[in-house]
Formats: sequence, C-alpha cells, structure tokens
Amino acid sequence: MAKIKQNSPVLFYFNHSKKWLAKISKKESFHTHIGIIKHSDAIGKEYGSRLITNKDKYVYLLEPTMFDYVMKIQHGTQIVYPKDLGYIVARAGIGSGQKILEIGTGSGSLTSFVANIVKPRGHVYTFDVDANFMRIAEKNIKKAGVSKYVTQHNLDLKTAKKLPLEDMDVALIDLGDPWVVIPQVRKMLKGSGSIFAICPTMNQLEKLTMALVDNEFTDIESTEHILRTIEARDGKTRHSFQGIGHTTYLCFARKAFFDRASRKISDKSDTVKAAKKTPKPIKKSAKKPAKKASKKSS
Amino acid sequence: MAKIKQNSPVLFYFNHSKKWLAKISKKESFHTHIGIIKHSDAIGKEYGSRLITNKDKYVYLLEPTMFDYVMKIQHGTQIVYPKDLGYIVARAGIGSGQKILEIGTGSGSLTSFVANIVKPRGHVYTFDVDANFMRIAEKNIKKAGVSKYVTQHNLDLKTAKKLPLEDMDVALIDLGDPWVVIPQVRKMLKGSGSIFAICPTMNQLEKLTMALVDNEFTDIESTEHILRTIEARDGKTRHSFQGIGHTTYLCFARKAFFDRASRKISDKSDTVKAAKKTPKPIKKSAKKPAKKASKKSS
Amino acid sequence: MAKIKQNSPVLFYFNHSKKWLAKISKKESFHTHIGIIKHSDAIGKEYGSRLITNKDKYVYLLEPTMFDYVMKIQHGTQIVYPKDLGYIVARAGIGSGQKILEIGTGSGSLTSFVANIVKPRGHVYTFDVDANFMRIAEKNIKKAGVSKYVTQHNLDLKTAKKLPLEDMDVALIDLGDPWVVIPQVRKMLKGSGSIFAICPTMNQLEKLTMALVDNEFTDIESTEHILRTIEARDGKTRHSFQGIGHTTYLCFARKAFFDRASRKISDKSDTVKAAKKTPKPIKKSAKKPAKKASKKSS
Amino acid sequence: MAKIKQNSPVLFYFNHSKKWLAKISKKESFHTHIGIIKHSDAIGKEYGSRLITNKDKYVYLLEPTMFDYVMKIQHGTQIVYPKDLGYIVARAGIGSGQKILEIGTGSGSLTSFVANIVKPRGHVYTFDVDANFMRIAEKNIKKAGVSKYVTQHNLDLKTAKKLPLEDMDVALIDLGDPWVVIPQVRKMLKGSGSIFAICPTMNQLEKLTMALVDNEFTDIESTEHILRTIEARDGKTRHSFQGIGHTTYLCFARKAFFDRASRKISDKSDTVKAAKKTPKPIKKSAKKPAKKASKKSS
Repeated sequence: MAKIKQNSPVLFYFNHSKKWLAKISKKESFHTHIGIIKHSDAIGKEYGSRLITNKDKYVYLLEPTMFDYVMKIQHGTQIVYPKDLGYIVARAGIGSGQKILEIGTGSGSLTSFVANIVKPRGHVYTFDVDANFMRIAEKNIKKAGVSKYVTQHNLDLKTAKKLPLEDMDVALIDLGDPWVVIPQVRKMLKGSGSIFAICPTMNQLEKLTMALVDNEFTDIESTEHILRTIEARDGKTRHSFQGIGHTTYLCFARKAFFDRASRKISDKSDTVKAAKKTPKPIKKSAKKPAKKASKKSS
Repeated sequence: MAKIKQNSPVLFYFNHSKKWLAKISKKESFHTHIGIIKHSDAIGKEYGSRLITNKDKYVYLLEPTMFDYVMKIQHGTQIVYPKDLGYIVARAGIGSGQKILEIGTGSGSLTSFVANIVKPRGHVYTFDVDANFMRIAEKNIKKAGVSKYVTQHNLDLKTAKKLPLEDMDVALIDLGDPWVVIPQVRKMLKGSGSIFAICPTMNQLEKLTMALVDNEFTDIESTEHILRTIEARDGKTRHSFQGIGHTTYLCFARKAFFDRASRKISDKSDTVKAAKKTPKPIKKSAKKPAKKASKKSS
Repeated sequence: MAKIKQNSPVLFYFNHSKKWLAKISKKESFHTHIGIIKHSDAIGKEYGSRLITNKDKYVYLLEPTMFDYVMKIQHGTQIVYPKDLGYIVARAGIGSGQKILEIGTGSGSLTSFVANIVKPRGHVYTFDVDANFMRIAEKNIKKAGVSKYVTQHNLDLKTAKKLPLEDMDVALIDLGDPWVVIPQVRKMLKGSGSIFAICPTMNQLEKLTMALVDNEFTDIESTEHILRTIEARDGKTRHSFQGIGHTTYLCFARKAFFDRASRKISDKSDTVKAAKKTPKPIKKSAKKPAKKASKKSS
Repeated sequence: MAKIKQNSPVLFYFNHSKKWLAKISKKESFHTHIGIIKHSDAIGKEYGSRLITNKDKYVYLLEPTMFDYVMKIQHGTQIVYPKDLGYIVARAGIGSGQKILEIGTGSGSLTSFVANIVKPRGHVYTFDVDANFMRIAEKNIKKAGVSKYVTQHNLDLKTAKKLPLEDMDVALIDLGDPWVVIPQVRKMLKGSGSIFAICPTMNQLEKLTMALVDNEFTDIESTEHILRTIEARDGKTRHSFQGIGHTTYLCFARKAFFDRASRKISDKSDTVKAAKKTPKPIKKSAKKPAKKASKKSS
C-alpha cells in the first residue's frame, strides 16, 4: 500500500477537465475554482483517497500514470492524443526492448509515452532542430521519469551527411514535411521495420504515401481515429453532446526491399529450379509491380 | 541485419487481407490464391525482402510484430481490435514493469499484447474458467513469445473465497457480466489502480458504471473508437469505401476510497496516524456526494 | 432578379456562426461585434450582394432558405439538426402532397421544415399539450411562411378517446416516452405508413423498438448520424478541429399487419371479400414469427 | 384504405437487404431464396399486409416510397445515398415550388428524389452528355412517377455558348470535375441561390472550393456524413457490427456578388453619410477581404 509523502507525484483529480499534476511539497497549496488545495493534506494518505476542499468539493489523490503525464505535457502545445498514441503502439507492435527512432521531439510527450513501454532494455533516440523545444522536452521527459531511456539529438536529418543510428525497430515522424526524411529514416531502420507519421492534413498523407512507395515501403496504411465518449447512466445512456474533432491522421508502413530480393530470386532460381529464364532488369521493371499493387489496394 | 533462417518467424505478406504467419521449416510450402510459397525460398534473405510466387506475385517476408500475432490469434474468435487495445494501453498508462490482472483470458491476444509491454519485470496474471480456452490461450501466448511473463489461473473469481493477488496496477475485464467481479477485482487492485472492461453492449456499460460508482471508483469513462481507413493516392484521396463496424465499447475507471479520506478531512486536526482508529461514518451518507458528482459530469 | 425591399426577409450573413435573420424595416439597425448594420442599406440590392459595416466587415444579404428558419427557430431550444431532418425526409420518402402527423410540436422547426416540402396539397397536423410552447411554435411557423399548411392540435394523445385523424402518410414523434403513443399513432397511420421518432438516448431506442414490434411494425431501423466538417484549403485539407457531438438517435418503422394477411394466406382459396369476416387468430401465435424475425436481423 | 390491385406498385419486403420493387401483374411470380412470390396473392390486400411464401417466410407488401425508388434505381450504379440526399435537401432548404438545376443526371435517382419534393409547381432541369445514361434515367424517373416535373437536357455546359436557363433556386452538380462548370452554373443561379456538389475525393473538395471563392460564392461548407446503424434489442443494444464506409463528401455554397454590392455601397455612401472618402478600386481590392475571410474561417 503506497502512501503519499513529500515529493510523491500526485494527480489531484476533480473531474475530467479539472485536474492538477504536482509533486508534493509540504508548504505548497493552490487555489482553484473548487477551493483551496493544500499539499500537506495529502501526505500520509493512500493513493485513491480524497480530500474535501474548503468549498466542500471532493478531490481525489491519484497516482499519476503515463497518460496523466502525456496530457499534462500536451497542455497548450501541438498534441498527439492518447487515441492516436495507442494506435501507434498497437499497429506497429511497439513493445519492451525495442529501439525507437523519433524525428521531431516536440514537447516530448510521444517520446515519454514510448520510452515507458520499451524500457528498461529498449531506448528512444529522438531528433529535433529547435534547441528551445529540446529544453522543454528534456524537462517533460524528466518529469515523466524516463530520461534514462531517451537520447536527444540536435540534428537536422534532412541535411545530415552521416547518420548516427542503424537497425531501429520503429521510426516515428512528427514533421510538417515528413516525406523529405524518408530516405534517411529508411537507412536507419532495420529490414521490415515500421514507420509511423503524424499527418494533420490529407495532402500530407498523399505526398507521404507517394514517397513511401518510391522508397520501397510496403503494408502502407493511412487511418484516422474517432474517439466518442458515452455517458452511461441508469436509463439515460447516450453519446456525449460534446464532440471531439479532428486531431491528426496517421500513416503507417514497413520497410521492404523491392529490387534486391527479386533480383536475388532470379539469381538463385538457376539452382532452385530455373524458374524464369529471362533475367529481370534491375530498377525500372522491378518497381512497376509495386505500383500496380498500390493501385490494387485502393 | 537479421537474416531469415530455419525456425525464424515470418509474416508472408501479400496485402492487408492476404498474409500468413509461420515459423520457417525447410521442407514446408503452402498453396495460396497467389501461388505456391516455399519456406526454403525465404532462408538467407533479409527481413523485408520479397519472393515472387509461381503466379508472378510478390510476397514480402516481414518480421512479425506483436500486431501480427494479435491479428493471427484473433482470427475466428471474439476479438479485441488493435484500435481498442491501443486505447487501453494509452488511457490506463500501461508501461514497463507493471502488474496486470486479467479476468477472462479468452484466446490470449490481449494477454500477449500487454505482456509484451510490461515485460521483463512486469507480469500478467490472467484468469479463466474454461479449461479448453485456457489451453488454446496457452499455445497462443507461447507463439507470441511471452509465456515467461504470464501466469494463467483457472479460477472463478465470482465465487472465489481467497484472492491470490494484491496490489495490481491495472485490471482488464473481458466478461459478459463484468459488474459481478468488481468487488473482487477491487480487492486485488492497488489504490488509484485502473480498470478497463470490454463491453460490447450499451447495457453492459450502464450496469457496469453503476457497479463502479457503488464500489468507489472514480474517473469513470466510457468510450468507443472508430477507425477509418484512408486511401491516399495522387489526386484521388478519400476514405475507404469499406466501412469498419462496431467492435466494442470500453469502460475505464480508477480505484478510489470514498470514506476514509473524507472522514479524515472532516476530523481535520487529527493526526494522520490516529485516523485509522476513528470508526467509519455510515456508508450511505458517504456515498451521496459521489452520486452527485457523477450526475454533474453527465 | 429579386431586389430586397421593405418587409423582405434577409439573412445577414457574416460567417457560419455570426448571422442574423430579419424582415427589412427601413428604420431599423442593429449593433454587432462586426459593426452596425442598417436595414435601409439593404433596400434596392439584389440578394447575394454585400454590405460593408462601419468596422469594415462584409455582410452578405442572403435570401433565407428553410434551413435558415430552422436554425433560427432552434436557437436556444431542444433541437433537431439539419443532418437529422434530412435523413427523416430521405428515409421516410417524404414528398409533395403527403399528410404528416407530428406528436410533440416543440418549437415548430420540424413542423415548418416538413410543411415546406409537402405543400401546397399536403398538410402537417401537429399535436402538443403545452399551450405556451404552442404559441411559440405558431409564431415560428408563421415566420417560416407555412401556417397555411399546418394545423396545431392541443390534445394529449396518450389519453385521447377519439382520434381526429386517419390515413396519415408519415408520423413524426418527438416525446420523452414515444412508446406510449404508438397504439394511437398506429390507428392514424395508413397501412405501410412510416413512423420516425427522435430518441436522444439508447434506452428510448430500446423501449420504442419493443413497442414497435408489439404493435405490428416492420422495417424497423435505428440510426445515428455523424456530421463532420472538412476544411478544404489549397494544400491543407483536413477535417475540422471542432467536433460535433451527439444530437439524437432516430428510430424508423413502417406499419404492417401481422395477423390479417397471414391468415388469408393460410386460408388460401378464400375469396378476398370473405376474409374480413373470419375471426382473427389469437394474438400470441401471430406474434411469434415477428419476434423470430427481429432476432434474426440482429 | 388503399388496396393493392393490378398495376399497383409494391415493395415486397423481407428484410433490409432482401426486398423487391415491382408493379403488380396478375400472372407474374418470382423465385427467391425465401421462396416463390406470386403477384396475384397480393391483389386485394391492404398495403402493410404480409404473405407467407412456400418456404414459410413472411413477406410484407409495402407501398413504395421515394426512398424505395431511389434505392432501387441506385442498385449497381454510382450512388447518392439517402443520408447524403437528405442533407442536401435540409442544408439547401429545398422545398415545394423551387426550380432546380442538375448537372450530371446519372441514373436519375437524385433527380427523382428532388422532383418529388419541388412538385407540383417546381421543376428539375437536368443536364447530361451521355445519351445512353439519359435513356436509363428517363425510365427511372418515369417509374418514380415524376416525369412531369423533370426536363432532361442533352447539353455539355462546359462548352455551351448559350445557357437555356436562369434564376434557378438550387444547382446540384454530380461531375468528376465540378469546378469547370461553376462559371456557367453561376449564370443560371439566382442571387444567393445554393449550389451542392457531390465530391467523392478530398482533392475535388479542394479544387472546387478554390473555384467557388474565385467565382464569388459565400457560406462555403464541405461536409461528410456518417450513418451508423444501431441494433436496439432488449438488454443488448449496440451499434451494428457491419460498418458503412465512405460514400461521398458534399460541398455547399451560396452565390454572392463580391464587387457590385461593395461598389454600390461606396457610391451610395455619399448620400448616406460620406462614410469613406476614398472611392474603392473596383476589382482587386474588393476581392482581397473575401479571401481573408475564407482564411479566417478555416
């Protein structure tokens, strides 16, 4: 049973939109619409307990989860919502021990979320060009408790001559023009490794998809995720009147080899069974079927 | 660079709906609509490479991710889709090292997915009453490579006198009548720990929500998740004509303590240690404010 | 070419959320966030023209459509949104010349919308029990210009002994407990006539559906309608960040006869005219197949 | 009470996906999965009655609505779904007596649906270039019983020198490249008249929106409509497992005058109050604010 003490992180929870994440500091207190909350009142209580404010409102003392850190980090910045974070993890099969490449650290929320999954043996290598943002991200990653599993790089991959990494399991891209880094990202990914890009507009999806086909990716999939809240109440259950609008579209793909394999097959085929007598031309014709495939899938 | 060899797992990928997950076995081959695929052709190739079948179709040799195992396991059983799996992880903040309680192992897909995230120091404790299902789940969990991080219990929690676990971080419930196990689940959860229940019908959401309020849970949230596929193509981008229907609703909550904390506060000047001795106020009055709160939030 | 003159109705349109519907009155003017708008400035202009306010903003002078009346009427009351209105018309096949029964006049917006479609030979008969609401509705219906095609009844159908109407083409129900009036509504509908009910909660759908089966309706369908706004812009096209939440669910059905027809068929060689005299088979057995059918459809 | 007789139209309804629309012809019968249905069995029955087939299945004899004609016409062709038809009517405020312009008759389903609303005093003028399609549409419009209210034109508006119509209330466009006809359509619309275009891709929305701004339209709105079916059953209510995918996006706008009005205002302003001393330049500057406005709305 975990008791709250000095320096414990606490989510003071009133409701879904009124909640405060803080580290307990004996002498602190904060004023809210629902009354004054004193940190010291929380000390010694078990997580899950509640306080009553001087305005007679209940506030729950919750142990923060990575969800709470992500929501806090994202407050007021460009955001990747939990619904989208979750799909990234599920579709790319992100799990313990993986090496993750991230282009566009932003506020560090996606970074922290993923680091918390791949640790302790996995790692997130994250790139940004904005030193200011990098400092903010550093603080956020630290607050979320995963600094040990994250390396921040201040490097512009678009112009980089030498790439510092290879054999990454998954690459996450959050840039306005994700297509420009695809060739570089490809070099750092392992064969069959996954890519996920945050694309707020349809035009980005379109351009990126073309770049992914050109750069020999397969299993390409663009999706959007609609989260709807339901108010389940005795005899009056219905969806919430408050709608949740667009956040972002997501684009997924896996690194393939269009030439090499097919070439190899025709090379090997002599030994295997002389399957095809005419050796295939290298680049051009090898690409054609891929384009056909992408047409078919539409 | 990982080369495929005897016993390597491979996802033979043609397109989103035609794909085969197998362990490489030199002498095996399988017949499909797109031609014959020989395992031996894959040996020695890098993951991501492709083969050409005797019908002149490309098949990619992908390294299976947990997504691929989950999709394979779920083939033909009641399913928890990646969109839903992902949200569970993101909203409950599931991460490395956590202890997860699962009621209703089913085919073991949710089990495997979560085990792959909490390992190597975390663990999934999963309960089922159907011995047959448990055997199937055992195989699936083994194939997904996470047996070491999963303990299967054949125990009916509804009638269990003694509970084998405590201090769980998260509880996942996939039962037709999730509300009946809430008191037992509560006892095994840590303070402020999370619950997630798979609820295919609105009526289940309604009954479960009432049980959660009665059992002193807070931050209760019911949601549904709509995944839409977008076909991003040069100059012709649009959503997919093929729709994805209902899978399940999800219900989330966090364990709180309605009595204890409020009592302490109203005592106010009491020392923390004395608090436990003061007799609890009667249940009814303590509950009222909670009900009010839940009304307001709707 | 229609010029705006004294007494012409005009929608002063600034943008989707700032617009004012008024009848032109020479001496009037109104103050808004975007400046002062004088009615007299509109006189003599063609519909579609624009004015510049004293704050240098453009305001368009649009000829109001029924959409504009509906949106204006609904301002601040319980609402039936255009997306839902439209589906009602399309699914029930509402068209020129039909006789429409409406239970629950409310503010008169649905009334006006439908009257504008069935006129000049069709008619809307609308019932309410709240005299206050009826007066408001009367004004709104008049403003929308369709009073001639609407008859308002102050009658509680739940307790009414004698029903004033028969052979209605379509019945529209907007009550909290729509199921209670189904037997009465049925009597006023023609054979195979349609019903549409506004049901904000899932529980209403559930209860109503059971009442519809019990009262021999077929082609029963419950739906919900999600409207998403897209911001189409050069190179930056995406869905709107602002979401639109739940409005209502809709329940549709068509009046059938479960007993009569089935009896005739089993009699087979009976003449049609004799059929009416044969006593009805008991209710129970006639109902069974209907229940089966409803199960199958799920 | 309407009895079915020779030549009566009947919808033989088994369930949502098995239904047959036909004109009663004494000697006809048809074979289906659910048994043989003889037209003669329907004669003399009231609409809404049911038959039992020789396979012991119930078939309802429904009076066809415009919905049934639209669904039948659309079987196997490119389609405008009821959810989209309905929104067009509701958002454009289509009602009795209006003059409708349609570019792209297609199979005639949108034509028939709208004609059934604007009749008897309104009219639909519909244009197509494909003589074959026009013949099919003619038959469908006739079957739907609205030929009297529809005029079909075989004319390519893109190249037409002289336009045969003016002062239309609403224009409906169903072409692959709707933007090319906007200038011509504009000339035929009344001031403040509405336009609705069927746009299956995002790229069409984008190009069309730009053309609408260039051609002085206002109140521009792009939307998509998601219809979800709910299976309301006692204690087991949930959305349907079967999803409904993308049909089309819709683009709406209203004809405005960007120059004329603003010019007039500055002309008139002397008499009004000499509001602005510098006379406005004619084209260029007048347009700028409009573009600004459209940016703002995004």
